[in-house]
Amino acid sequence: MTTPEPTTARHPSASQAPIDEHRHATVVGTGLIGGSIALALRQRGWHVSGVDRDAERAERALELGAIDQVGYDPEAELTFVAVPVGQIPEAVREALAASPGVVTDVGGVKASVVADVGDARFVGGHPMAGSEQDGVDAATADMFEGAVWVLTPTAATDPTAFTLVRSVVAGFGAEVVEVTPERHDQLVAVVSHVPHLTAAALMSLAATRAEEQRGLLRLAAGGFRDMTRIASGHPGIWPDICESNRSAIVEALDELVGSLSSVRSMVDTSDRGRLLDVLEGARRTRNALPARSVRPGELVEVHVPVKDQPGELSGITTLATDLDVNIYDIEIDHSAESARGRLVLVVSAAMSERFVGGLMARGYHPTAHHLE
Amino acid sequence: MTTPEPTTARHPSASQAPIDEHRHATVVGTGLIGGSIALALRQRGWHVSGVDRDAERAERALELGAIDQVGYDPEAELTFVAVPVGQIPEAVREALAASPGVVTDVGGVKASVVADVGDARFVGGHPMAGSEQDGVDAATADMFEGAVWVLTPTAATDPTAFTLVRSVVAGFGAEVVEVTPERHDQLVAVVSHVPHLTAAALMSLAATRAEEQRGLLRLAAGGFRDMTRIASGHPGIWPDICESNRSAIVEALDELVGSLSSVRSMVDTSDRGRLLDVLEGARRTRNALPARSVRPGELVEVHVPVKDQPGELSGITTLATDLDVNIYDIEIDHSAESARGRLVLVVSAAMSERFVGGLMARGYHPTAHHLE
Repeated sequence: MTTPEPTTARHPSASQAPIDEHRHATVVGTGLIGGSIALALRQRGWHVSGVDRDAERAERALELGAIDQVGYDPEAELTFVAVPVGQIPEAVREALAASPGVVTDVGGVKASVVADVGDARFVGGHPMAGSEQDGVDAATADMFEGAVWVLTPTAATDPTAFTLVRSVVAGFGAEVVEVTPERHDQLVAVVSHVPHLTAAALMSLAATRAEEQRGLLRLAAGGFRDMTRIASGHPGIWPDICESNRSAIVEALDELVGSLSSVRSMVDTSDRGRLLDVLEGARRTRNALPARSVRPGELVEVHVPVKDQPGELSGITTLATDLDVNIYDIEIDHSAESARGRLVLVVSAAMSERFVGGLMARGYHPTAHHLE
Repeated sequence: MTTPEPTTARHPSASQAPIDEHRHATVVGTGLIGGSIALALRQRGWHVSGVDRDAERAERALELGAIDQVGYDPEAELTFVAVPVGQIPEAVREALAASPGVVTDVGGVKASVVADVGDARFVGGHPMAGSEQDGVDAATADMFEGAVWVLTPTAATDPTAFTLVRSVVAGFGAEVVEVTPERHDQLVAVVSHVPHLTAAALMSLAATRAEEQRGLLRLAAGGFRDMTRIASGHPGIWPDICESNRSAIVEALDELVGSLSSVRSMVDTSDRGRLLDVLEGARRTRNALPARSVRPGELVEVHVPVKDQPGELSGITTLATDLDVNIYDIEIDHSAESARGRLVLVVSAAMSERFVGGLMARGYHPTAHHLE
């Protein structure tokens, strides 16, 4: 995962780079991600041109100061293509034709795009930040600080093209992770695409029952709501994603179906031991999910029964601030349909005693649960 | 779903009942749910006895004032059995032998228990509140206010036994929902048991990849974390639940596998139209999930990009309190591994403009998303 530092004087690491008015870039697609890239570039002194299929969006980016001008820049040393997955190959080819510089993209699927484009000046990329559904108005120059930015160079990629992209996005504060396009796609199939399709399948299951007796869906408690939350977004982007990442998604779905079928047989035969093994294994992996810079063993879940009334949430979060306790995660567990809920707060183990004590002093009944 | 009001003078609706020192109850299993039932009964003037396999837990319930005495009460008009699913039939039989009164339980699975016990004095029940993993120290008398409490009488159930249980739990402030034991079990299989097993299967999928290249699990963003959160709990209760609700779980798993296989074939053949239909349908059902007393159309998600720093969360929730905006749900979306996150707050549509305005006045860039 280590990559040599760029060595050419032409492209110093952006974090050390003096502001250089003469570096030129184009951003194709001036939405949330493209707009944020443009802002980050301009903040570092680049001259940024912007293109969007939707002329109004490009105008808006200009108005907001995200870009210096509308149109392709033939002098662009680097072009970022930030359009929906299905439009990437065409947009990349256009960008390659518009200037002799390097082109990179920000799409959520890589192998098909990289194979389709097949140009030494193209480097596939995928910043793990933001959302595809917000516009340029939500764009910010610091969107990528601390974010993982995946780059997928291949044997056909010009090493200096890779080095350029790497140094520029590292300069945005992103952590660059280099993998093959295929590996990237397998991983996002597992952690994003298949979970999304599974949430939809779970909702279909519930929908069948809902037709019969809708009120009983009120039995759906927090766990079900959590698992199906991602099914509530606009589905428009998914046919393209599924088409672009077909083989990895099909493979992961096959594996998931196999795993569920095996669990089904454990339930059917009351194979308690194996069932417990599967659930224990899942629990260990879940609790070992890398959580930003903090190791899971250092985090504690504090559960606080609360009434759902205005002021309780702010009272508790303000208490945390007063005690200098940083809240890594927070969740309101409504305990099915009860007016009484539970606040679940994830804090560092080192701070949890102080926080629990403070809560008790204010009449709450918190309980602390170590995340093993 | 309507049930006649109780008509006997002996068992007036608890909400109208005067405090009557002479009503006796026993609670078997003095954990979070049993303890809360005991507290709710005592608050209404009942004399409550408590039993627990773990003598220390019963003593602790006595110490906390949840029960009046330890042991079975032969005069108990009503006994609540609040023990883990696998121990319910035996505990119910013991309770039926200990007094001539009515017995009900609070287990998450009903058909097998109801069939196993088969006594006219037993009424199956399942309050949708609390958690099975917290102890009596977290118990409260108002745990069931506004909660759904499922009761599963059958043709063999004595109607006066059902009327008694119904009036007492309605007196706790719960909303009683009456269904057959089989119907209850099918529903909890779909909204609780199968989602739990699916979360574990998704984690296994990720675990295979994690062995190869653990760091790449950092690509797992909020959606994946949401979907697998329930896999992080202690799995000890699940073999019993799966055994008790075997047929409904197997049936729902078969349906889910069928649904996933059909989605797999849509992806494999790039059947964009059907895929979009499935995802649109899931989205509609998800967004129509009954959300407490508020209709989904009346709720708005407000997204607020934030830095992960102490004070921001409390600042925003305090602003909501100051503006009298009730927060129905809150989530920290860490956008993969970025130091920059996004706060997702669910508020009523009527209040969302005021809230968004207040946030903008404080320099935030919120966006509002209607839940259709």
